[in-house]
Amino acid sequence: MAAGPVSSYPAAIERALAAFMRLPGVGRRTAERMVQHLLRAEPELPASLAEAVAELGRVITGCARCGFYAERREGGEPPLCALCADPRRDASTICVVERPQDVVQIEGAGFYRGRYHVLGGRISPLDGVGPEDLRIAELVEAAAGGQVCEVILAVAGDLEGETTARYLGECLMAAAGPALRVTRIAQGIPVGSGLEFADPATIQRALGRRQAMD
Amino acid sequence: MAAGPVSSYPAAIERALAAFMRLPGVGRRTAERMVQHLLRAEPELPASLAEAVAELGRVITGCARCGFYAERREGGEPPLCALCADPRRDASTICVVERPQDVVQIEGAGFYRGRYHVLGGRISPLDGVGPEDLRIAELVEAAAGGQVCEVILAVAGDLEGETTARYLGECLMAAAGPALRVTRIAQGIPVGSGLEFADPATIQRALGRRQAMD
Repeated sequence: MAAGPVSSYPAAIERALAAFMRLPGVGRRTAERMVQHLLRAEPELPASLAEAVAELGRVITGCARCGFYAERREGGEPPLCALCADPRRDASTICVVERPQDVVQIEGAGFYRGRYHVLGGRISPLDGVGPEDLRIAELVEAAAGGQVCEVILAVAGDLEGETTARYLGECLMAAAGPALRVTRIAQGIPVGSGLEFADPATIQRALGRRQAMD
Repeated sequence: MAAGPVSSYPAAIERALAAFMRLPGVGRRTAERMVQHLLRAEPELPASLAEAVAELGRVITGCARCGFYAERREGGEPPLCALCADPRRDASTICVVERPQDVVQIEGAGFYRGRYHVLGGRISPLDGVGPEDLRIAELVEAAAGGQVCEVILAVAGDLEGETTARYLGECLMAAAGPALRVTRIAQGIPVGSGLEFADPATIQRALGRRQAMD
């Protein structure tokens, strides 16, 4: 119906359709399904969805230390995320990721107990993202304080991720000296997967970094 | 992550995820993509989505005449939809559909110029929907007023749709007499489609209702 006949929906429905269609993966059909569902549901559903979305924009900000999602505090002091505020987390290890959702992925594995640092992206000259656009100075400052023993670089394994990891490694070594261990997450065949789904670069990496049986 | 480790998201994000997951076809992954998009976007996006959804619940109601989507008016008088309020629509023909979105489908074809009547469902004893749960009395009243010449039954072609059409036909004939023409939308092979995609019942109907070339 893009350039077709005039819509028969009331204006309020058209506004809701337009708003839903700005979400990723939502076309007009999907937006219509969502809006029709909201209209059929108890009034509580649109009200609570509206309040939750409004709260999202009002309340969520970046953690003052690591950049992960945090909630704004009364009084305006910079907030910490739940992970940075948790005294049981190991402050001697920082895991560096590109995006906040990477933190959720790693936390979902339920294994890592250290802290995080969210870069906010990766170095990508083609997209106009340089080192100065990322939270690198904050990382170097945190890592050079003396309390941190290891920085794990968990950026992506593609070319831009490698470039970012290399750049970060140099900055960190220069600032913190040899006392700081800088590591990179392992690359290879996914657990539970076979060679038939692996691309040549992954196979090469998995063979090159083969390890003794333990 | 259903029963997995504790979420590392702030409570406001968990509330937004839960609200999005109540929409049709939205699981946790999709909800996360939507919320992440809202958090990355300009603050205008969550604000306008929240306002549009809240407005939906506040403003949209059923048209006092046909049952299609209409906007509540100041003062609380029963509102008409854009189609019933349009004097250029042919008031002598009523097209009966099950759901409001069926009106949008037919309007999208850009061909029909009459009025509509939204039943609000179909007769379905298994789902506990009887004639008294549908807007049948309103239809009979509208059709028996003398102004209406034809009622087109555009309910679905399956068993429950047929039952509903048959029941509506009897009610309408009884109330309006032989002056009212009651018709049923044609069934057959979709335009632009071939026999290879048609089910046996459709082929039987298409053959049985074959028409002379014009």
